[in-house]
Amino acid sequence: MRTIDLNSDLGEGYGPWSMGEDAALLQVVTSANIACGGHAGDPETMFATLRRAVECGVTVGAHPGYQDRAGFGRRVIPMAPGEIGRMVAAQVGALQGLAALAGARVAYVKPHGALANLAADDAEVAGAIARAVAALPGGLAVLAISGTALEQAARAEGLTVFSEIFADRGYLPNGRLVPRSQPGAMIHDADAACDRLLRFLDSGLMPVADGGPPIRLEAHSICVHGDGPAALAMAQGLRARLTASGVVLRPFVAG
Amino acid sequence: MRTIDLNSDLGEGYGPWSMGEDAALLQVVTSANIACGGHAGDPETMFATLRRAVECGVTVGAHPGYQDRAGFGRRVIPMAPGEIGRMVAAQVGALQGLAALAGARVAYVKPHGALANLAADDAEVAGAIARAVAALPGGLAVLAISGTALEQAARAEGLTVFSEIFADRGYLPNGRLVPRSQPGAMIHDADAACDRLLRFLDSGLMPVADGGPPIRLEAHSICVHGDGPAALAMAQGLRARLTASGVVLRPFVAG
Amino acid sequence: MRTIDLNSDLGEGYGPWSMGEDAALLQVVTSANIACGGHAGDPETMFATLRRAVECGVTVGAHPGYQDRAGFGRRVIPMAPGEIGRMVAAQVGALQGLAALAGARVAYVKPHGALANLAADDAEVAGAIARAVAALPGGLAVLAISGTALEQAARAEGLTVFSEIFADRGYLPNGRLVPRSQPGAMIHDADAACDRLLRFLDSGLMPVADGGPPIRLEAHSICVHGDGPAALAMAQGLRARLTASGVVLRPFVAG
Amino acid sequence: MRTIDLNSDLGEGYGPWSMGEDAALLQVVTSANIACGGHAGDPETMFATLRRAVECGVTVGAHPGYQDRAGFGRRVIPMAPGEIGRMVAAQVGALQGLAALAGARVAYVKPHGALANLAADDAEVAGAIARAVAALPGGLAVLAISGTALEQAARAEGLTVFSEIFADRGYLPNGRLVPRSQPGAMIHDADAACDRLLRFLDSGLMPVADGGPPIRLEAHSICVHGDGPAALAMAQGLRARLTASGVVLRPFVAG
Repeated sequence: MRTIDLNSDLGEGYGPWSMGEDAALLQVVTSANIACGGHAGDPETMFATLRRAVECGVTVGAHPGYQDRAGFGRRVIPMAPGEIGRMVAAQVGALQGLAALAGARVAYVKPHGALANLAADDAEVAGAIARAVAALPGGLAVLAISGTALEQAARAEGLTVFSEIFADRGYLPNGRLVPRSQPGAMIHDADAACDRLLRFLDSGLMPVADGGPPIRLEAHSICVHGDGPAALAMAQGLRARLTASGVVLRPFVAG
Repeated sequence: MRTIDLNSDLGEGYGPWSMGEDAALLQVVTSANIACGGHAGDPETMFATLRRAVECGVTVGAHPGYQDRAGFGRRVIPMAPGEIGRMVAAQVGALQGLAALAGARVAYVKPHGALANLAADDAEVAGAIARAVAALPGGLAVLAISGTALEQAARAEGLTVFSEIFADRGYLPNGRLVPRSQPGAMIHDADAACDRLLRFLDSGLMPVADGGPPIRLEAHSICVHGDGPAALAMAQGLRARLTASGVVLRPFVAG
Repeated sequence: MRTIDLNSDLGEGYGPWSMGEDAALLQVVTSANIACGGHAGDPETMFATLRRAVECGVTVGAHPGYQDRAGFGRRVIPMAPGEIGRMVAAQVGALQGLAALAGARVAYVKPHGALANLAADDAEVAGAIARAVAALPGGLAVLAISGTALEQAARAEGLTVFSEIFADRGYLPNGRLVPRSQPGAMIHDADAACDRLLRFLDSGLMPVADGGPPIRLEAHSICVHGDGPAALAMAQGLRARLTASGVVLRPFVAG
Repeated sequence: MRTIDLNSDLGEGYGPWSMGEDAALLQVVTSANIACGGHAGDPETMFATLRRAVECGVTVGAHPGYQDRAGFGRRVIPMAPGEIGRMVAAQVGALQGLAALAGARVAYVKPHGALANLAADDAEVAGAIARAVAALPGGLAVLAISGTALEQAARAEGLTVFSEIFADRGYLPNGRLVPRSQPGAMIHDADAACDRLLRFLDSGLMPVADGGPPIRLEAHSICVHGDGPAALAMAQGLRARLTASGVVLRPFVAG
């Protein structure tokens, strides 16, 4: 029986501003990456999202990002690796504090945006993040892209690492994502995306953007998006197709 | 043998800005209230202050305040009690996350500035803060002024409460501080402040500003300040006088 | 021939977050109150809104508010009147700087949210705002509610003051708005709101919430909202009804 | 008769935090670069610094920087050139608004920190800044390092450009500063710095760090610093030596 997790970024509002269709997404996903007040989020959004995740039986992860709301964590802010580790510890700690109040448990950490990209490539940054996660209480796992520096650093720290693939992104022969600026980066057709994922779940093989032979990828979770009606519809369609095909949707780690 | 704790607010810088004489104060106090990124502080100041406190054998407390750096937490920001509780949980959680990374333990919570004043008077706010502290892990105590709403709310939540008095502030007959706008609010003479505290430690009785009979106060800690050379000198002088008088300076709770 | 202006709050996004239906609203209103980076807005939203307003022939006003994005300027932040005046000068100056770059002109100032409420009641705050507006270059007018402290203070500073009424708010016999917490505060029926305004434009008389005799109000502009489909539909319906009734929609001051 | 201006960065506090010896520096310099709320400063610091500059007869310039208080504007925040231009327009506009209230005039613009470094090298960024400055009212000049992209872009926009040299920094043969990470970057001996500047004022020739032939530089102003007792003492000593040597200290542009 094939099982997989669906994860998405949630709680990315701030003050009076909301983002994404969190209520609908919580009916789709099995794991929620919750913004921690860095690139998005504040105590109110964090707490409310934690409560809703608990009510929906969705596992909770921390989604730390650069302290840069204006740039939504998509800009690299020059910081030493040690500064990054401390920023991650403070953000995950804040979510853990609110989780204690909300009766939730933070089960894993998945970096956001430019921080995630840097942690995928830069061993020093990845190591600083992994050391911060390892130092925090609660037995936190890491959700990462297979083959990245973050995965290696997390394993070196003795952390449990789960791998994610992307429903709507093209892959390069080396297992990394096609950059958004290049053709083949995005899969806009929901049916094509579902077909690709179902074949992957059967075979463990992922097609690559340049038409070469498919590559073997490890995946415990599929990342879906909910920013905008089309993204939400794709996520909902993917869940329906997976379920109809007998795939069991289940968190990769208990909440 | 008389024993008492000395506490002070530390880690109140932000980014390029420093405040107070933290290095010198850590040689004076036995407990450090560390700003948590609300009224002051950021991951760098929080981590560095945690490390220095550990090195100096000083017990660490969380010092949450309104998310208002421009106002340094001295302005009441209108918030519902529940919002205040969540803000406190997030800030203390952030400090706990950094403490885990720094090899430190957060032992207690002491609210800052306008938040502390409100929590002294407003039972709903006090209750929200106490519930947040009680929900957080780590067996946190509360450091409060004896007789305040916060003390009562903390006890009602089953928290351990320690009481503080102020080295340089005058008292009213009801045990509250003389407001800063009134005569007798501040004791500027360091010797007079020391004399008063030594007599208090012998008798448990504190003189009041209007000349009436001294009142009985409970005190596990004396709050001293380090913002400016005069404040630091008073704190240093107080420590020297207390020690010379045979008073043992010791944290009210282990770090 | 009856003429009136329609104004609304625009540019209230921040970084990745948008708010309201600005593009649709710019087809409805004749004056746009643009957020200045205090309660909402940043240089990108301010510039983009200025450009779109110019393209749509809509007059531009500055919409300063408390420096409190998390609270969207709806909380009173304790500040001295002089501090408020300096905050307003900085925010309006920032919008004027961007207007110079965008080929636009800031024609008036209308305070936002809790700042507007305070300026309506508090003569010192109103005076500080009026002095700031009077000191700024560009011959700025003030858009205020008739009968408020801000109107008086602005006239005392020699400023031109225009008056606004609200399409969807009930009025008290003294000309002030029914507080949102009381019955009759909001008019939710778009047709009823239009009927009321058309009668007002004919008679100069506004019904009051307690059923007493209608009161005489001065109005150069009607404030409409665009936050949510219902609000936008009401604003669009109001414009259509006014135009169909022969009312000419025109800015109260040239852009 | 030799004349020169002395400029320094002022108003770099924020909320409760101060930085530098502004009061003492205003007795030394003839031009003040005032932080605009980006890397430092807020309406209170901006207004207070403007007032003190007027009282001291010191010319005022705007000192915009990245919107990054935690990094004090010393980190490159990835932004498109157009975004940088809009950020500069908003910051300078805010200072102009406060200057109107303070009875001051903003006479020039000098970018800060990482923004200044980027504008020295990157023609697109320099052009965006120059266009923003040219669009703003008030006939603003630019204070730049001779030979930089900013100087060229400002001239291309028809702006008046003044050149500055640094009292305490070493120069490369191409007229640029020795990077802080390299030997010879800083001149720590106040007397040696004064000697070098006096010779430069006589000859127009500046020694270079590698011992090659001195280079010809243009200078309307000398940049001094006031962050810390040593920096302030060097600035004060420089002023005394220059004055004693018959050099007339005068703003490069009237306030």
